[in-house]
Amino acid sequence: MTGSAPHSPALTDVVARLRAELGDAVDTSDAALEAARTDRSGHRSAAAPLAVVRARSTADVQAACRAAHATRTPLVTRGAGTGLAGGAVAGAGELVLDLSGMDRILEVVPEDRVAVVEPGVLNGALNTHLADHGLWWAPDPASKDISTVGGNIAMNAGGLLCAKYGVTREAVLGLEVVLADGTVLSLGHRTVKGVTGYDLTALMIGSEGTLGVITQAVLALRPLVPGAVHTVGAFFPDVTAGAAAAAAITGDGLVPAIMELMDEATLAAVRAHAADDDAARLPETGAFLLVQADGEGAAAQADRMAELARAAGGQTTVTADPVEADRLVALRRTAFPALEALGTPLVEDVAVPRSRMVEMFARIGEIERATGLLIPTTAHAGDGNLHPILLFGEASRVGGEGGGEIPAEVWEAAGMLFRAGLELGGTLTGEHGVGLLKRAFLRDELGDAQHALQERIKAVFDPHGILNPGKVFTPLP
Amino acid sequence: MTGSAPHSPALTDVVARLRAELGDAVDTSDAALEAARTDRSGHRSAAAPLAVVRARSTADVQAACRAAHATRTPLVTRGAGTGLAGGAVAGAGELVLDLSGMDRILEVVPEDRVAVVEPGVLNGALNTHLADHGLWWAPDPASKDISTVGGNIAMNAGGLLCAKYGVTREAVLGLEVVLADGTVLSLGHRTVKGVTGYDLTALMIGSEGTLGVITQAVLALRPLVPGAVHTVGAFFPDVTAGAAAAAAITGDGLVPAIMELMDEATLAAVRAHAADDDAARLPETGAFLLVQADGEGAAAQADRMAELARAAGGQTTVTADPVEADRLVALRRTAFPALEALGTPLVEDVAVPRSRMVEMFARIGEIERATGLLIPTTAHAGDGNLHPILLFGEASRVGGEGGGEIPAEVWEAAGMLFRAGLELGGTLTGEHGVGLLKRAFLRDELGDAQHALQERIKAVFDPHGILNPGKVFTPLP
Repeated sequence: MTGSAPHSPALTDVVARLRAELGDAVDTSDAALEAARTDRSGHRSAAAPLAVVRARSTADVQAACRAAHATRTPLVTRGAGTGLAGGAVAGAGELVLDLSGMDRILEVVPEDRVAVVEPGVLNGALNTHLADHGLWWAPDPASKDISTVGGNIAMNAGGLLCAKYGVTREAVLGLEVVLADGTVLSLGHRTVKGVTGYDLTALMIGSEGTLGVITQAVLALRPLVPGAVHTVGAFFPDVTAGAAAAAAITGDGLVPAIMELMDEATLAAVRAHAADDDAARLPETGAFLLVQADGEGAAAQADRMAELARAAGGQTTVTADPVEADRLVALRRTAFPALEALGTPLVEDVAVPRSRMVEMFARIGEIERATGLLIPTTAHAGDGNLHPILLFGEASRVGGEGGGEIPAEVWEAAGMLFRAGLELGGTLTGEHGVGLLKRAFLRDELGDAQHALQERIKAVFDPHGILNPGKVFTPLP
Repeated sequence: MTGSAPHSPALTDVVARLRAELGDAVDTSDAALEAARTDRSGHRSAAAPLAVVRARSTADVQAACRAAHATRTPLVTRGAGTGLAGGAVAGAGELVLDLSGMDRILEVVPEDRVAVVEPGVLNGALNTHLADHGLWWAPDPASKDISTVGGNIAMNAGGLLCAKYGVTREAVLGLEVVLADGTVLSLGHRTVKGVTGYDLTALMIGSEGTLGVITQAVLALRPLVPGAVHTVGAFFPDVTAGAAAAAAITGDGLVPAIMELMDEATLAAVRAHAADDDAARLPETGAFLLVQADGEGAAAQADRMAELARAAGGQTTVTADPVEADRLVALRRTAFPALEALGTPLVEDVAVPRSRMVEMFARIGEIERATGLLIPTTAHAGDGNLHPILLFGEASRVGGEGGGEIPAEVWEAAGMLFRAGLELGGTLTGEHGVGLLKRAFLRDELGDAQHALQERIKAVFDPHGILNPGKVFTPLP
């Protein structure tokens, strides 16, 4: 990767040039620059970026890319800023390209089960719109009400429904992309299948703003799943028993829509954070497994899931009542706010083969004992993706005022988590991306040869290295 | 793309070098060289290649790549030779790397729903093996009994089940790949989700032997679908009515496992080719739609599909009896042999948005009238992928003795088909790949800027352009 040149003589002109071209779309207010220094990762850059370009169209994006390319100015693309790995954090000498205003739903074609959207549309808003057509877009990050479709695509985001309904990559047919030099490309297709040339759509998905700027997406939709959702809530003496239940459910050939596992520390935090009435309904100790079945045969599947959970030592509730289900789902949904009340969270994202999940929980326990840190963990148990949460410092909102620097011992524990995940045949990030926070470990997972190959691919798309420099790959010293 | 150098002084030594390293694995028999000149595309190279290397291990593949790289010798990777676009056709001055002997199933981990296999294993053989574990691998090309998993991956093959169960890309988690210079890379992961760096696994899938050699694959498996398959066969007065029925079924939110549409000319060929008893059961004229529902609720779904087919003017049969279902499925399965009895087929592969399928059938009719050629067409109607079959010359087996050259007027008609598909928002190949046969049209679909970018990516993987040169991209003049 060629380095950016923040001290180029042209740099002082880039904001003036953009303002001449784009007028009010160029925002250099303190509030705008301050907001662009952080995201939901807990990371904050050392100094404010040069300007925020609030793009309204593909042409605006092209103008920003051309100016950045010509002046070798780093360009950090940003959606809603809900990323958990620091991919959208912008600092000194950088331009920010804010796509949150490009939020139109351009087309919905029910006969083709296809929608064409701009990247800034919120996931939740899109699905509200699609429901009128009897359709939905499957990617379902926990942040769906505040995160954008473009952010999902840039991360290849996962979420709660992946084991049954796939990841973002499987729900995107084509992309309009602006390259670093301003060239617009139309990648992929509007058809269900298509194998013309290399799959650059897939290559863009998960590239975290380093290969190009996504300005439109052709999304593959699904018909709404008919019938009621059946929910199983199961309490276990410990997380090992809960993980065994999850393994038994997968091993039985069942495919839950959602299967979420919370360990003892997480459930304790939820209990402490809950209103008295709700807390009284929770067991004093233990772990919690939330399972949902949907579609044809959901009732029978939920009964079987509950049976397997009981066989693994669980106390189960099964319900098709939306209110009662919401109460169970809320235990999972409130986990993150409950943990934030205990300290500043660094959310990790290791994924392991499903069969190694129990071992990974054990390794997390060992790391807690070795470091003295509390590492409450939830898992997407249907797909082996764990979110160990490293708690440090004072209670604070991530990305909020209390964020501050991540202490060295927390980094060290994060490194131990990554290495444990890799040793168990896993990966250091299941769905949050590499961004800033995991770049130090990228080479360990890819190996030197693949790391070098990926950097050469980056250079093909972005020869001057202006797109999100210092993210994903380790910056030049 | 840098050109290959078939007249390099080192060339005469490459076979001797390989024989010294790999012994009997290097086959220069006339029979081996002859077989490597063709595949199932109907294309045959002008002259025989240098040698066939029958790889037994990743180390053998590395040795072949290193020798080819050092001597700038073109290397054509080959599985079972069932490709329909000429991707495995090898000619003068080329080495053939035959992976059909690397056919071991290395691991099946039911708890993880993962298998690790070598590329030469046959699709059908793999699924027979997996059935013992209650699992299956979804990619389902019509050639499954004779085609390899590696070939599926190299093409991103589709098949009959894509609309419900996805394409090959969605069923592969990771790959072991040997690059042109012999470097081994481990791409992707064994976990359900993983977003570490660029998705080079997806980039390799469908790259048709031009980026590297796949030596192992980590496959994502599914639990066997429970319950009986319910089959609907529907005869329509014409293909337009059949296509309308298919659109109504998709529009109703139903997701058939299989939905195959045969036009009038195809059904007529099947009738002419059938035994008298079977022919007597078929209507004198018309089109045929085959639909299958599987999984929970299949019976009710099949009834609803049949109801929609009748509303579109169809005469329907619905059955859960395997023998009766086989009789209906046989109409589709015998279409290709029946057409081969009428002439030499050039199988096209255009895909259009589902809503444009009726228009595409109309455009095919116009092209038939304009050219005087007969172009019987079947379609994967669940996903808008049509296989217009250009018939020319004498009855012959594709790739067999009668193959010969494709006449200019057939190429011209193929060009008209591609352009019609692109005009309807489609793609020139849904599942067969570009290979030799569609490379002249690649730039029309990708556009110049994307075409150039793809060539630069190719050069990153294969700087001397030795891997399957002249395929996918147009060769240098």
